[in-house]
Amino acid sequence: MIHITRRERFCAVHMLRNDKWDDKKNLEVFGKCSNPNWHGHNFELFITVKGEVDPTTGFVINLKELSKVIDERIIQKIDHKNINLDVDFMQGKMASSEVLAISIWEELELEIKKLGGILHCVKLVETENNYVEYYGN
Amino acid sequence: MIHITRRERFCAVHMLRNDKWDDKKNLEVFGKCSNPNWHGHNFELFITVKGEVDPTTGFVINLKELSKVIDERIIQKIDHKNINLDVDFMQGKMASSEVLAISIWEELELEIKKLGGILHCVKLVETENNYVEYYGN
Amino acid sequence: MIHITRRERFCAVHMLRNDKWDDKKNLEVFGKCSNPNWHGHNFELFITVKGEVDPTTGFVINLKELSKVIDERIIQKIDHKNINLDVDFMQGKMASSEVLAISIWEELELEIKKLGGILHCVKLVETENNYVEYYGN
Amino acid sequence: MIHITRRERFCAVHMLRNDKWDDKKNLEVFGKCSNPNWHGHNFELFITVKGEVDPTTGFVINLKELSKVIDERIIQKIDHKNINLDVDFMQGKMASSEVLAISIWEELELEIKKLGGILHCVKLVETENNYVEYYGN
Amino acid sequence: MIHITRRERFCAVHMLRNDKWDDKKNLEVFGKCSNPNWHGHNFELFITVKGEVDPTTGFVINLKELSKVIDERIIQKIDHKNINLDVDFMQGKMASSEVLAISIWEELELEIKKLGGILHCVKLVETENNYVEYYGN
Amino acid sequence: MIHITRRERFCAVHMLRNDKWDDKKNLEVFGKCSNPNWHGHNFELFITVKGEVDPTTGFVINLKELSKVIDERIIQKIDHKNINLDVDFMQGKMASSEVLAISIWEELELEIKKLGGILHCVKLVETENNYVEYYGN
Repeated sequence: MIHITRRERFCAVHMLRNDKWDDKKNLEVFGKCSNPNWHGHNFELFITVKGEVDPTTGFVINLKELSKVIDERIIQKIDHKNINLDVDFMQGKMASSEVLAISIWEELELEIKKLGGILHCVKLVETENNYVEYYGN
Repeated sequence: MIHITRRERFCAVHMLRNDKWDDKKNLEVFGKCSNPNWHGHNFELFITVKGEVDPTTGFVINLKELSKVIDERIIQKIDHKNINLDVDFMQGKMASSEVLAISIWEELELEIKKLGGILHCVKLVETENNYVEYYGN
Repeated sequence: MIHITRRERFCAVHMLRNDKWDDKKNLEVFGKCSNPNWHGHNFELFITVKGEVDPTTGFVINLKELSKVIDERIIQKIDHKNINLDVDFMQGKMASSEVLAISIWEELELEIKKLGGILHCVKLVETENNYVEYYGN
Repeated sequence: MIHITRRERFCAVHMLRNDKWDDKKNLEVFGKCSNPNWHGHNFELFITVKGEVDPTTGFVINLKELSKVIDERIIQKIDHKNINLDVDFMQGKMASSEVLAISIWEELELEIKKLGGILHCVKLVETENNYVEYYGN
Repeated sequence: MIHITRRERFCAVHMLRNDKWDDKKNLEVFGKCSNPNWHGHNFELFITVKGEVDPTTGFVINLKELSKVIDERIIQKIDHKNINLDVDFMQGKMASSEVLAISIWEELELEIKKLGGILHCVKLVETENNYVEYYGN
Repeated sequence: MIHITRRERFCAVHMLRNDKWDDKKNLEVFGKCSNPNWHGHNFELFITVKGEVDPTTGFVINLKELSKVIDERIIQKIDHKNINLDVDFMQGKMASSEVLAISIWEELELEIKKLGGILHCVKLVETENNYVEYYGN
């Protein structure tokens, strides 16, 4: 078993807000992340896949194919977009990095299995000081 | 003369759009940067100041004071904010990195003079692939 | 379960030295790290916490609170300080990165539990070429 | 148990090609990585070792000794070299990052045991967007 | 006048060698960079353009168009290629970073003028420790 | 004319203190940088040299020779050392980054001239947020 990781990037906006709470409570919990006019980030997305090395290619998975799947399923839907408003797989969810990482896992897991790999980790870097990792359970 | 640079960071959203153009023309010129639901970045701001070294301190300028000025004049107004809607010194302007860098220069030039330094460069990094620099003319 | 990581930074000095050994033996084992006039680093500290996502916030842990705990318990005691001389939780210990990482774990584990998270990893980066990770046992 | 990681770097060339396939098939699978005139990278190699902290030194392993072993066994053989043609431990193998990481593991595992540590991970970074990790099985 | 910079990347191989010298002399001057089986790098290319800000767009130059020109004139010819053998604009030249930067300037200067900008600097980063900059004379 | 830059690194300690001032005044001006038990950094040093390209080598200056000069004149004297106490060329000076950069210029200017290059800039990076540049006057 070997692990291989592909980095992709996207720029997006989000807002952290619980609609059941009033503005004061939202500000208290989410601070400046609750700004109703949005704020945004350059996100970095690291997708780690594991598997056996194929002796005919030396590859665990063909990175061109992996990159294509990440692009179609995630980047095209979220890059230069509004996570709360524009992204189909985030509808009705909190737009936190934690929830976004889990949702990206759900979008990619089966597609990566079709390519012959096992999704191992979704790592989502929000700023140089904050990132989340999800291992599927 | 020596140059000293302070980096600060902010997360913000913007939209590139000329209101005199229709959607098609805006999309053609600005591409996905014209998304009406916004997109955002982690901006890095590098402020370079030049001057003589003060022999009693070894400093060109006290970085604590420089950082405080940048924070009060720029970061507090723009961090986790919407550049088109929330930032007083960007009202009525195109929200491009070029225009933002020039506007930051105008906000800081006099304040830095009061601290005894000469503003030399405003560098604004939008993504790992794009940045602008403004030298005041 | 999801993992979330917060990066903090501090600048400090240390010296690697076993007081039971003479200078020659210390130089042999620790090389230039045994310089009696100290040497220093810009340390990066990555604190990884794991837990369930709270559905009302989308958070594992509130990063503002996590950052505050790391600041009070670690950064205020060690930033711009001498690890061998100034830091209470390092008294009587070797000032290596390994021992420092374990000591930071001991300072933070309970505090993070009070915030509702589980400390998963302390990663301490000494230079761009060297870092240590401690997982608690 | 604590983990310590040492980064080393090397510049090398390789070509991805299965000699049993014709040019068309190689191009189809490996894309521009199959260019017969080679292509190259600045590789970063992260060697992670685990073990108990030695109370007389505060060290898991002496990084000077670890760095020396990595240099002798890997860097001197591969830096500014051709992975397919020049590197003894890659003869007759596919020159992919996956296979290279596994081969580096095999070269280092025993040497690190002699130094008193346990090899935990070989991480090989090919570009800022691609890396592999091998944990020994 | 404002400066805007676009980063692009390419992976390539080269060899430093003066054909008028014998192997010993080449080794003496170029060290391991003269390895006849090649060595390679992940190069980073920073193209800086200067000009006035267009008030209808807020742009000095449209980065999509700049990126397209760099891609067509440079990246497609050099990425995953052999600088000495494969690149038309390097034929008969020393394959040093200095000469490569000057040659890239010559390829881009007129194309950037057609886009309405003035080429200000070609910066070529060979490793994290070495880079060259060319300002056109 | 082309510019070439070599990065070197060193770890060192310093203290910012004017001996003519009492502790209170030093604390007021220098903040935590005046801690009498020292603090330290991983400094990055970028030495930029300019000159004509030598047609027989493609080089402005041989980087191996430049690196050797920087190592002998600067790195060996300052790496893992105390800037205030251990470094001959800093005796009797304020140990600020500004003064250190100017002093490094004075140590290197003639040596680089002997190698056939012209020293253009000394850039000294103290932290990821602060750096100074000196151009010789």
